[in-house]
Amino acid sequence: MKAEIITIGTEITIGSTLNTNAYYLAQKLFELGIENHYQTTVDDDAQRLKDVISIALNRADIIITTGGLGPTKDDMTKEVIAEVMGLELEHNPEMEKHIQDMFTRIGRCMSSNNRKQATKPEGSIFIENSVGTAPGIYIYHKEKKIIMLPGPPREMRTMFENHVKDLIQDDYIMLTKSVNTVGIGESSLESRLNELNLAYENINIATFARDGRVEIKLIGKGLSRQEIERDMDEIIARLNVEFREYIYGYDNISLEEVVVNQLMQKGLKIGLCESCTGGLVSSMITRVPGASNVLDRAVVTYSNEAKMEELNVKSSTLKKYGAVSEETAYEMAKGLMEKVNLDLVASITGIAGPTGANENKPVGLVYVCIMSKDRHKVIKLNFNGNRIQIQNRTAINVLDEIRKYCRDFN
Amino acid sequence: MKAEIITIGTEITIGSTLNTNAYYLAQKLFELGIENHYQTTVDDDAQRLKDVISIALNRADIIITTGGLGPTKDDMTKEVIAEVMGLELEHNPEMEKHIQDMFTRIGRCMSSNNRKQATKPEGSIFIENSVGTAPGIYIYHKEKKIIMLPGPPREMRTMFENHVKDLIQDDYIMLTKSVNTVGIGESSLESRLNELNLAYENINIATFARDGRVEIKLIGKGLSRQEIERDMDEIIARLNVEFREYIYGYDNISLEEVVVNQLMQKGLKIGLCESCTGGLVSSMITRVPGASNVLDRAVVTYSNEAKMEELNVKSSTLKKYGAVSEETAYEMAKGLMEKVNLDLVASITGIAGPTGANENKPVGLVYVCIMSKDRHKVIKLNFNGNRIQIQNRTAINVLDEIRKYCRDFN
Repeated sequence: MKAEIITIGTEITIGSTLNTNAYYLAQKLFELGIENHYQTTVDDDAQRLKDVISIALNRADIIITTGGLGPTKDDMTKEVIAEVMGLELEHNPEMEKHIQDMFTRIGRCMSSNNRKQATKPEGSIFIENSVGTAPGIYIYHKEKKIIMLPGPPREMRTMFENHVKDLIQDDYIMLTKSVNTVGIGESSLESRLNELNLAYENINIATFARDGRVEIKLIGKGLSRQEIERDMDEIIARLNVEFREYIYGYDNISLEEVVVNQLMQKGLKIGLCESCTGGLVSSMITRVPGASNVLDRAVVTYSNEAKMEELNVKSSTLKKYGAVSEETAYEMAKGLMEKVNLDLVASITGIAGPTGANENKPVGLVYVCIMSKDRHKVIKLNFNGNRIQIQNRTAINVLDEIRKYCRDFN
Repeated sequence: MKAEIITIGTEITIGSTLNTNAYYLAQKLFELGIENHYQTTVDDDAQRLKDVISIALNRADIIITTGGLGPTKDDMTKEVIAEVMGLELEHNPEMEKHIQDMFTRIGRCMSSNNRKQATKPEGSIFIENSVGTAPGIYIYHKEKKIIMLPGPPREMRTMFENHVKDLIQDDYIMLTKSVNTVGIGESSLESRLNELNLAYENINIATFARDGRVEIKLIGKGLSRQEIERDMDEIIARLNVEFREYIYGYDNISLEEVVVNQLMQKGLKIGLCESCTGGLVSSMITRVPGASNVLDRAVVTYSNEAKMEELNVKSSTLKKYGAVSEETAYEMAKGLMEKVNLDLVASITGIAGPTGANENKPVGLVYVCIMSKDRHKVIKLNFNGNRIQIQNRTAINVLDEIRKYCRDFN
């Protein structure tokens, strides 16, 4: 069974609405184990919609459309689909009464064009819309399943959850598992993946990169849940060995959640001293509910004065080595550690650009110091990119260092 | 000239990534006045990609693809397009050297599969990628324009802005102007817009909302630049009167840039004390180049101890009124103002949730204090939404308050 998602509406093709319907439906189809390789969007135009439906009927068994079921003249989804499939439209008195009742209930008048919503292609059935006026429509004709859903996301989602799942589910089982890594580039990760030669018939492996992190996604499909799970466990065991250093978690967990959880489990309190990242690491950690259990405070010491006053960085250090130096990173961390009773401090100083560089210190140079009561390390980093990328990549790197520190903490 | 947008990637068809690229490109094509009726998404599969390209070549003059230009085996866009168009792939030594240099600069090794990025279809030209490794590609062949862009949104957008616009523009003159507002909801803004009755033949007006800000976009198209500019000036003059209070800037400027510029112009130094936003306001301000001229420091006082130690908040105040209160917000700002020689301090304390609420203080309650040497105000805010939305909306609100303070500062 192959599905295609067709989202209909000029508001999408002119870029006024972000297409979250296709996103939602793709996720749901994926979870149901239904193959879905195409998404098409087309504006409110009868001829073009006709072409799109014809193309989809050639390459998919299930077609899910959203949009174009309302009462206005721009709404033409069922009319066009009926025409393409050679079906007549029939008026349904029960549905008309149902819509009429709904309007009465909310004390409004049913306009004559709402009557249009009570028609459907012959042989099709209405799908109940519990949160709006436009009903959905289901056609099963010549071994194709066509499901027409309304465009408003809430109506579409409610209808999908309540009715559509049962109409399209097949016997296959689909399982996914993500292995999340940080600190290794996508291309070198993939070369190493290829060398592992993980050839399993039922399982596809794909990688997705984002801001210094790479997700390894396993997608298993088959008739036996047990078999898929066994194969997945085997693959994950191999990945755990090969990429041990880089794996920070599985499935939907984010790096900042992992960091907060680890700090919480080990009962560690952390403080941050940020310069070039300007509070980004702190704001990422505080996105996680419960962050207040582990983050005591952060000091964004953007100016040299702030570094000296808040963190006791020596004026002579700043003069001799500069604000972006191993020595300053160390003194920043030491300053906070001596001032507050913390288990762990991370300090960051660097050049995010576009200005601030000199011959020996290019844009993208960053020093990070991770310090606990009894030890510390200073890490020198170099990043490419614009100001925001350098800040983002630095933040990810710092979170990763905190993660590694926690992991090894006894 | 008709365009089609093709977004390529299994991460989209399995619903793991929201397709913001199609959204962005649709908006841009609309602004350029280029008709665009179809968007297609297809997974990383050579045969299906081939079919999609063939269909698009039949119905569009300009095809813009995103994705599939990276170094891995899943990346096959240019290979497939070359094949469909009957073009050979050729290796480009200059591009290889360019990529090699980039890796050398960041002290990493170029893996052998990065070499793939230095090939292109015969007769095509590379489009420079100033923010990543994968170059784009432009083909003009048999009266069709094919533009291949990388998938990562930032790279795609930068490339589009810098190079692609010029490649696809036609004879019409297209002018756009954005009026950016904050502090007014999209629907009430739109009702007021409608009442203004701004009916100009050559100019469309659309609104786009994002995180507490609404952009009013004017899109003018015609053969006379002078006429469009005159009409636009008229409209903007009316908007400036109607929405004076809410307008923070025009075109691509962000609220944080406006704030940094204003502080810079007036020669003001600011300090921040953040609690529930965890450094977000500070990190937004420091995204702007030159932020170091205006931001002296930020203190993220997440714990009560930090509030007392860093900002001299009285223990009795915390006990009596709680950490989320008008009184605490005031004392936080006062603490930093007394400690450091600053012109302006903003403090934030609130409940971002999901925990921390009680009967009198719901999730979403936030107090903000804006303080200068001779005056201050405390603002009480209430937001709906999840933790991250509350943090984002609070940050936007604080930036807006700083903006208004600066505007009125003499």
